[in-house]
Amino acid sequence: MRIGHRPERDKRITTHVGLVGRAFGASGIMIDTPDEKIEKTLHAVSRNFGGRFSVKTGVKWLPEMRKWKREGGAIAHLTMYGERLDDVMPHILERAKESKNLMVVVGAEKVPKEVYNLADFNVAVGNQPHSEVAALAMFLDRYFSGKQFTKNFKGNKTIVPCERGKKVIKAEKA
Amino acid sequence: MRIGHRPERDKRITTHVGLVGRAFGASGIMIDTPDEKIEKTLHAVSRNFGGRFSVKTGVKWLPEMRKWKREGGAIAHLTMYGERLDDVMPHILERAKESKNLMVVVGAEKVPKEVYNLADFNVAVGNQPHSEVAALAMFLDRYFSGKQFTKNFKGNKTIVPCERGKKVIKAEKA
Repeated sequence: MRIGHRPERDKRITTHVGLVGRAFGASGIMIDTPDEKIEKTLHAVSRNFGGRFSVKTGVKWLPEMRKWKREGGAIAHLTMYGERLDDVMPHILERAKESKNLMVVVGAEKVPKEVYNLADFNVAVGNQPHSEVAALAMFLDRYFSGKQFTKNFKGNKTIVPCERGKKVIKAEKA
Repeated sequence: MRIGHRPERDKRITTHVGLVGRAFGASGIMIDTPDEKIEKTLHAVSRNFGGRFSVKTGVKWLPEMRKWKREGGAIAHLTMYGERLDDVMPHILERAKESKNLMVVVGAEKVPKEVYNLADFNVAVGNQPHSEVAALAMFLDRYFSGKQFTKNFKGNKTIVPCERGKKVIKAEKA
């Protein structure tokens, strides 16, 4: 859940948040402000590089978060003011055994107090200012124990790791 | 080393690259295009939150990279086309025993071929498109084995991890 998105100012940062979510194993992104361009960009990446990744924009974050909790889901909010990632992750993983539905909230500049209160976990990826893009990546890396990079996306394009240059396999059309 | 920076389009992404570099243990950033605003933003963060972090913009990346190598430094270039992070990191750490000077190159959209050729390591943080901000964070996390989060920056402001809300200690002026 990306909140505080301002299409003009944040378009690239929010796009990166979405791309990181997809590449690091999240199943989808919700964005509070309507933004067709970001929807198109993220869908195009999934079309090319595979995997399912849902994208919803114009989502009312407060009712959505409340509904999420009513339905038994957990919420982690990423903030540099929160508890240390490595301290809190064991509790999040423990909680994930009861419910696989985990929402990760990523704010832009000012985050309303309700988010801190509604979240089951306020998580700091380091207590220094840096980037919600990096914070999400690190959070998902620890959540999936680094296994996110071995996921097979089965896309039309598959990149083959190589020492120099670019190696891309394109799937034949059926 | 951030290359291909376009001040208008990339200002926020490049700022995040710099902030991640600082928060994840790099000693400084060089940016190819002159950009006073980014210099100011990054200096202000170091002034408030501590640590030394050098910022140079308007750097000619090709001669700078060549000089770096002549002086015995190693270069890692982050690209989704490269070798897998977890496969190549042991070699980078081995190399770091000879020389602590490691330059990490982070490109914007199109990266010139010379970068792939000059780099000692072309490193993929997952072979999916996502974000140079996330790629840099993950790379430095693996390079410093997660210890970057325990660094004490000794700034004017220190954030104290907490479960809810914000706790910030401000240093007394001498």
